[in-house]
Amino acid sequence: MQQQISVITLGVSALDRSRRFYTEGFGWTPVFENEEIIFYQMNGFMLGTFEKSALEEDMGRPGLVSPGAFALAHNVADKTDVAPLMDRLVGAGGRLLRAADAPPHGGFRGYVADPDDHAWEIAWNPAWRIDTQGHVTFGV
Amino acid sequence: MQQQISVITLGVSALDRSRRFYTEGFGWTPVFENEEIIFYQMNGFMLGTFEKSALEEDMGRPGLVSPGAFALAHNVADKTDVAPLMDRLVGAGGRLLRAADAPPHGGFRGYVADPDDHAWEIAWNPAWRIDTQGHVTFGV
Repeated sequence: MQQQISVITLGVSALDRSRRFYTEGFGWTPVFENEEIIFYQMNGFMLGTFEKSALEEDMGRPGLVSPGAFALAHNVADKTDVAPLMDRLVGAGGRLLRAADAPPHGGFRGYVADPDDHAWEIAWNPAWRIDTQGHVTFGV
Repeated sequence: MQQQISVITLGVSALDRSRRFYTEGFGWTPVFENEEIIFYQMNGFMLGTFEKSALEEDMGRPGLVSPGAFALAHNVADKTDVAPLMDRLVGAGGRLLRAADAPPHGGFRGYVADPDDHAWEIAWNPAWRIDTQGHVTFGV
């Protein structure tokens, strides 16, 4: 069995608002979009932002709620990259959850919620290698 | 800005129960584990399962709820792989959300919730290439 995740799909209530956060905040470019879903090609998998009602219908599971018990992380190359990116995400419709500081396990990180209340950790973790293609490898 | 996600962290209420689902259901091997977190090295990023209270504390955000408005997908190589994997996940503590069938956009997929109610889509999507390292590329 491949140790592999193909897609992270986030339910969103307004696709345009979400698109602004990901394209202007993170600076990412969609690889596909229509009126109910946007896909971003990520580092070895896909990020999808999907109208929440359509996600619920596809899952056969109405009543999805926020904030869900999960977080996504985007790691940056340098400690000084954390705060400016968090500011840019807030400027693109995000909301500050926790200002950046040093966690007990080392590094530096803060949290911003996207417009649909999905949590993003913006982190500098010098132990985890990120190659030029964005592939992240565990390290301690 | 790298179009990159470094970690997907799922909040879990019982780490052992969650571990069984991922190691016996998916057949995945942890790269790191302690009493509050388990990391799995995935295809270019990390999957973390983290005690929910510890995740809430790290985020400075109590009250995370389920089911959250998101889904993770694991794509398989062949249509006939979908149902057996879903069965194995249910046998390892998962819960069937939607039996596998063909969605309007093509392919074949079903949904299983992990023991913490996080949704996994198990999908066959012949348009999306998966290389030998598990890296997934968008296609139509």
